[in-house]
Amino acid sequence: MLRGKIEIQNRVPAEGIFEKEDGLINLIYTPGVAYVAKEISRDKKLAYEYTSKWNNVAIICDGTRVLGLGNIGPEGALPVMEGKSVLMKLLGGINAIPLCIATQDKEEIIKFVKYIEPMFGAINIEDIESPKVLDIVERLKKEISLPVFHDDQHGTAIITLSALLNALTLLDKKLTNTHVVILGAGSAGYGITKILFKAGCKNMIVIDSQGSIYKGREDLATNPYKRDIAFQTNPNEIRQDLVSALKEADVFIGVSGQSNIVTSEMVRSMNQNPIIFALSNPDPEILPHEAKKGGARIIATGRTDFANQINNATIFPSLIRSLLDLQIKVLSEELLVTVAKAIAGLVDKKHLKDDYIIPQINDQRILPIVTQTIKKMLKSHLVT
Amino acid sequence: MLRGKIEIQNRVPAEGIFEKEDGLINLIYTPGVAYVAKEISRDKKLAYEYTSKWNNVAIICDGTRVLGLGNIGPEGALPVMEGKSVLMKLLGGINAIPLCIATQDKEEIIKFVKYIEPMFGAINIEDIESPKVLDIVERLKKEISLPVFHDDQHGTAIITLSALLNALTLLDKKLTNTHVVILGAGSAGYGITKILFKAGCKNMIVIDSQGSIYKGREDLATNPYKRDIAFQTNPNEIRQDLVSALKEADVFIGVSGQSNIVTSEMVRSMNQNPIIFALSNPDPEILPHEAKKGGARIIATGRTDFANQINNATIFPSLIRSLLDLQIKVLSEELLVTVAKAIAGLVDKKHLKDDYIIPQINDQRILPIVTQTIKKMLKSHLVT
Repeated sequence: MLRGKIEIQNRVPAEGIFEKEDGLINLIYTPGVAYVAKEISRDKKLAYEYTSKWNNVAIICDGTRVLGLGNIGPEGALPVMEGKSVLMKLLGGINAIPLCIATQDKEEIIKFVKYIEPMFGAINIEDIESPKVLDIVERLKKEISLPVFHDDQHGTAIITLSALLNALTLLDKKLTNTHVVILGAGSAGYGITKILFKAGCKNMIVIDSQGSIYKGREDLATNPYKRDIAFQTNPNEIRQDLVSALKEADVFIGVSGQSNIVTSEMVRSMNQNPIIFALSNPDPEILPHEAKKGGARIIATGRTDFANQINNATIFPSLIRSLLDLQIKVLSEELLVTVAKAIAGLVDKKHLKDDYIIPQINDQRILPIVTQTIKKMLKSHLVT
Repeated sequence: MLRGKIEIQNRVPAEGIFEKEDGLINLIYTPGVAYVAKEISRDKKLAYEYTSKWNNVAIICDGTRVLGLGNIGPEGALPVMEGKSVLMKLLGGINAIPLCIATQDKEEIIKFVKYIEPMFGAINIEDIESPKVLDIVERLKKEISLPVFHDDQHGTAIITLSALLNALTLLDKKLTNTHVVILGAGSAGYGITKILFKAGCKNMIVIDSQGSIYKGREDLATNPYKRDIAFQTNPNEIRQDLVSALKEADVFIGVSGQSNIVTSEMVRSMNQNPIIFALSNPDPEILPHEAKKGGARIIATGRTDFANQINNATIFPSLIRSLLDLQIKVLSEELLVTVAKAIAGLVDKKHLKDDYIIPQINDQRILPIVTQTIKKMLKSHLVT
C-alpha cells in the first residue's frame, strides 16, 4: 500500500553531516542556525532567502466541498490534497503542504491562514463550500500579504475560458454573441461567470438550485457573489429552469457537483453544434457518450480518462509557480483572462479539433508561457 | 544559497503518470482519488492507511523561546525548525512539518493544534515560552487523540538523565545521594526535575530568576509547575542563590537560556569532581574551557561542536518514530526514565570516559534500542 503520496525530503546531503568539526549539522542546527534565526528575526523578509518559505504553498481545505463529493470532512479531503501536492511538485516544482483542518467556521479558517503566514510564500484555497469560501478569499486578499489563489474559482475559470475560446474557434463563433448556460453558482460558477464576462461574453444564464439567477431574486440579498452574477448575466432577467434555458443555448458549462443531471434529450434541444463542458468531478453532469448521443459537437469533462480534460491541474501548478517567483500579490480579472488566452494559444490551429481543444495537463509548454505572459504584464504594470 | 533545508517530494513515480488510460494520475487524482476520499470519510482511521498521516509530525512553534535566543518570532524560528525536520528525517524517517505560527496566545495555539489533528500522526511542541507551553502540553494531552511530545521538556529530560547516569557511573556515585543544582525552571528545568525525581534523586535545588524554589515561595501560587518542582526538590526549603547553592553541589545542570553566568570560581567552589552540564544553546552557561579551569571533571553542553553533546536530537527522532509506529499516546514518567536508561546503556563501561558519556546524535543503535524498550513496556502494559 502506498500510505501517502508525498513526503518531506532533506535538501542537505546526509554524507558527513555529523562530522564533529566541519559537519553541516553545525550550520543547519545549533549553534550555527542561531545566527540565521537572529538575522531573520531582525528582517522577516530574509525568511525568503534562508528558509523554504519562497517555495512553500499551503493547501487549505476544511473538507466541506471535496471534488463533487460534498462535505466529507478534513480526513476525507487529505488524499485529494495530497494528489494536488503531487501535481504542484511535478508540474511546478512547488512544496505544497496539505492543511486539511478540523474547523468549518469562516472566521476560524481566516485566522488559521493568518497564523501560518510566516512560513508560506502563497496560499491555495481548495474545496471549501461556497459562498463561505468566497468571503474567505476576499478577506484574505485584504488581510494577509501573500498571494491567495482560489483554485476552484481562479483555476477553473482560466482553463474553462481557454477551452471555450478554442471550441468557438473550431466552430467559427465569437464569444460575444455566444449563448452560455452555466449550471452551478458556487466558486467555479462564480469564477467562470466573471472571467467570461471580462472576456466579452454578453449572453449568459447562470442556474443554481433555485433556477436562473436574475437581478432582484429575493435570496440574492444575502449573497453578494450571486448579486455580482446577476449583474453580469441574464440581461433580460429571464426566469427559467435548466431545461428551458438549454433550448436557447450554444454552450453548456456544468460546475454543479451533480451527476447525470443533463440528458441527451436536453443536449438535442440546444442550438446547432452544442458545446458541452460537464466539469463536475468525479461524475460529470452528463457522460460523454450520452452527450454525443444528443448531438453534442464538442465535449469536455474534468476527468483524466476522457478527451478534452478541463481541469485546474492544467493551470494551478504553473500559475502558482509564477506567483511565487514573480511575487505577484493581486490576481486581477485581466491577469486571469490574459493567461487563459495564452494557454488556449498553445493548441495551434493546425492541431485544433473537436477532441483536442485544450493542452494536456502535463504539456511542458504551459509553465514557460504562463511565466512569460505574467512577466510581460508585470513589465507593463498590468499586475502587481 | 540553500533557501531551505527541506522540501516536499513525491512518493509516486513520475514516469508514465499522465498516460491517458492507465497513468497513475487516474488513481491519485480525479476520478480515482474520489473512492479513497469517500472510504476515509466513512472511517477516519483509514487516513493512516491511505495518506501520509501515519508518518506526519507537526513541529509547533510560536517563536517565543527559540534556542536560547528568546522571543524572536515565528519567522526567526523557521530555520531552527527546518533543522529539526532534517534530523527527524535523517534519524527517524519522519515527515516533520514546521508550523511556526503567528500567534502567541495560549488558547489560540491549542485550537490551532486541534485544527490540524486530521493530517498528523503526532504533535511535537518546540521552543514555546514557559509556563504557557506546559499548560498547552497538559491541555493537548487531554484534548486531542494524538501523542504530544514536548521536546524541550521530554527530550531534554531523557537525554540529561542518560548522560548523568553515565557520568555518575564514571565517578562511582549514586543518583540518590548526589546533590544536583538545576539553573532554570522553564520547560527543560521542569522536565529534568521530574525525571531525576522519578529516577530517585532526592537532593536537588532548582534556581530561577528569584533564587531557589521552595515550598510556599509566594510567586508559586500562580505557577503549578514550579509548585511541582518545590514538592520534588529542596526538602529543607533552603533559600539561596546560584553562588551559594553551587558550594554544596556535585552536579550543575544549566537550562537557563543565559550565557556565561557560571564562572570558573563557582565551579571551583563545588564538591570534588564537579559535573557541569551547561546546556543552554547556542551559548552555554559556561564554556567548557572555563569549566575545566575551575576543576570540572565532566563537562557537557548542548552543542554539536564540543564533546559530550547533551542534545534532544539524540532522542527525539527515535522516540517520535516509536510513538508513531507503536501508536503510544501517553508519555509517562516511567517511559521517559526507562528510555533514558536504555540510551545510557549504549555507552558500554569499556568506552565510558569523561568526554564520552552519551552516544553521538547519529548513533545507529539509538532507534532500535528505543523501539525495543517501548515495545517491551507495551507488552507488559507499562505504556498505553
